[in-house]
Amino acid sequence: MAAEIICVGTELLLGEILNSNSQYLAQELARLGIPHYFQTVVGDNPERIKQAIAIAQKRAQILIFTGGLGPTPDDLTTETIADFYQTTLQESAAVIADIEAKFAQTGRPMAANNRKQALLPVGAEVLANETGTAPGMIWHPQPDLLILTFPGVPSEMHQMWQEVAVPYLKSQGWGQTSIYSRVLRFRGIGESSLAEKVTDFFNLTNPTVAPYAGKGEVRLRVSSAASSEALAREIIDPVVDQIKAIAGLDYFGEDEDTIASVVGTLLRQRGETVAVAESCTGGGLGALLTDQPGSSDYFWGGVIAYDNQVKIKLLGVDPEIIEHCGAVGEATAEAMALGVKERLGTDWGIGVTGIAGPGGGTEQKPVGTVYVGLADPAGHTSHILLQFGDRRGREWIRYLSACQALDYLRRRLQS
Amino acid sequence: MAAEIICVGTELLLGEILNSNSQYLAQELARLGIPHYFQTVVGDNPERIKQAIAIAQKRAQILIFTGGLGPTPDDLTTETIADFYQTTLQESAAVIADIEAKFAQTGRPMAANNRKQALLPVGAEVLANETGTAPGMIWHPQPDLLILTFPGVPSEMHQMWQEVAVPYLKSQGWGQTSIYSRVLRFRGIGESSLAEKVTDFFNLTNPTVAPYAGKGEVRLRVSSAASSEALAREIIDPVVDQIKAIAGLDYFGEDEDTIASVVGTLLRQRGETVAVAESCTGGGLGALLTDQPGSSDYFWGGVIAYDNQVKIKLLGVDPEIIEHCGAVGEATAEAMALGVKERLGTDWGIGVTGIAGPGGGTEQKPVGTVYVGLADPAGHTSHILLQFGDRRGREWIRYLSACQALDYLRRRLQS
Repeated sequence: MAAEIICVGTELLLGEILNSNSQYLAQELARLGIPHYFQTVVGDNPERIKQAIAIAQKRAQILIFTGGLGPTPDDLTTETIADFYQTTLQESAAVIADIEAKFAQTGRPMAANNRKQALLPVGAEVLANETGTAPGMIWHPQPDLLILTFPGVPSEMHQMWQEVAVPYLKSQGWGQTSIYSRVLRFRGIGESSLAEKVTDFFNLTNPTVAPYAGKGEVRLRVSSAASSEALAREIIDPVVDQIKAIAGLDYFGEDEDTIASVVGTLLRQRGETVAVAESCTGGGLGALLTDQPGSSDYFWGGVIAYDNQVKIKLLGVDPEIIEHCGAVGEATAEAMALGVKERLGTDWGIGVTGIAGPGGGTEQKPVGTVYVGLADPAGHTSHILLQFGDRRGREWIRYLSACQALDYLRRRLQS
Repeated sequence: MAAEIICVGTELLLGEILNSNSQYLAQELARLGIPHYFQTVVGDNPERIKQAIAIAQKRAQILIFTGGLGPTPDDLTTETIADFYQTTLQESAAVIADIEAKFAQTGRPMAANNRKQALLPVGAEVLANETGTAPGMIWHPQPDLLILTFPGVPSEMHQMWQEVAVPYLKSQGWGQTSIYSRVLRFRGIGESSLAEKVTDFFNLTNPTVAPYAGKGEVRLRVSSAASSEALAREIIDPVVDQIKAIAGLDYFGEDEDTIASVVGTLLRQRGETVAVAESCTGGGLGALLTDQPGSSDYFWGGVIAYDNQVKIKLLGVDPEIIEHCGAVGEATAEAMALGVKERLGTDWGIGVTGIAGPGGGTEQKPVGTVYVGLADPAGHTSHILLQFGDRRGREWIRYLSACQALDYLRRRLQS
């Protein structure tokens, strides 16, 4: 018994988009313990989609389609599947109502084109799409064959998979032995250094421990195959505790934790507040903090001081300091942190100034040089120097500067 | 005459890596004008690899394999292809010498299991790998069928494709006609509404016009097959001009343009500057503007006024206004825009305030309600109301609020 993934879309054959949907579904099938041996990509072409179905239905009992459910004439997945199984389409009143409601929310009328999205083969169930207008379907066109369809938009597909498809598959007896994992997240330590510290754990068989690198962080996935999450946790938890003890402050969170969510939790626990003064990150640090719902409990705001005059006028940075140590310097970063803390009246202040590139680097301060200043509740200031180099580019330097600035505050809050 | 891509690797079926090789090859085949209708992913399993070959060789005249050329026992691509065509393997002395030379550079002796990488089917040519130890092959196992194999390591595969495979394909008469595309980008109009406006263009055959949705924008791809880019442009450009005329201000850019890069270009042309006052976007608008290298030419900075006190203290918003129309209201958004423009001394000021959710919504102002205020060089203010609804969530509302705020400025700059 196996599943097979069929991604439909000429944009995939033209290489315009990366096929992240097949990776997502592959990970999910592995997690559920559902075997999966082939993936197919085919364009928005009825005859070729039918060829793909004819081949896949001989090899698998679950066919998972993504793409081709949109409102435009080149979206043909549903009607082609129905045609392959010589089944007529019928309009779902519920889907029509749902699409109309979604258009109403944005104050626009439903376009005529969207009507076709409500057409499903007779006998198919709607696989509800909470966010978009393209519903999928759950259909058994013949005994022992299940067809699931999803739109190509990843965010919609993920939600539909988690909230509808997974519960349905489990209700049908699939994925009874699942693989459960906890992902541990680390900062301020390289993948190889962490690997050396925890190398003995890599020989374990249940749970398994595997390292992988994230964007500016290192992760360890601790996984166990078990019939229930409770049983899996009994196997996983002690190992996780040992790893945390070894990693110390380099461990910052797990699973869905982000550096911003962890800092937010710590500040909320302490009833403290923070403000930011940003130069090279240009608002990215504030954006990272406010990604968190409820961040207004501890984040009051900040100043984007991209121009030196803004550092002086709105943050009260002494022009002498900028004169002496430059717009990118340790004293400037600390003055920015203290300035924003005092002007906004928060407990903590963070200042970030650096050279994101591609231009602006010098011999002493090459592209990738970033200073993070921190002002604490007592008004004492400190700083760290980050050196990213220029090989990963501007976007990486800006994003990691914001993450590392928060990690600097986290370490202070935790020590 | 078509090509087909077969990616071999169990790690792809487990979702451990993203299949970027298929996107790369797809783009290259499109660029060369070599039709390509199917992509297959299969694990490191001889029987299933043979099934994939049996199917693909009926549909295509060029089979392009990636992965499974390494030195370890689970790397089976070459021997499985040879076995499928009942051809024996023979060791290539040239490849052995090359691998030994590469090991010599690292001061290590060649490992025994690297020997298998020198085994190629009788009659196959070596597809040289300059950087790695895994060569690919160029082989005609039967008339009218060409097989190309590449290692899975993207950097090696790219180099081998560009330096060996492309010249070989052109020498065989492939890639004489290339496909050229322009991608047009639109904002403030839905995919289905735009499709209705330009529906006649979808019937064209050369160039072809196809719509697809991006994150908060709609795109039209205009593609033409021609023997040179110059000829393709002659076919594409008039159609692009007609579509732009129909779309008017809803068209904002093409190809690599982003709303931030377009606004940056317009401001730089006019020698004007902008500052931002952000509430619900929390810095995301500034971050979007400063994603652009050189944005300091026109972006001076801003204030993240997440807390009402910051709106009053740093932006000089009259408490009365917040009292009367709320922190999220049109007058507040305009006052924020004017306040930041005046305090920073820029030509333009943008203010964004809204309810990103999940909490904070009311009957009159549900989650997804966002006001964008704009202060122009004369100090006149205006605003727009955005209604995203709550179905796509906080991150979407925040990101699109920043994009739409820039689009509001763009429309002012262009009209």
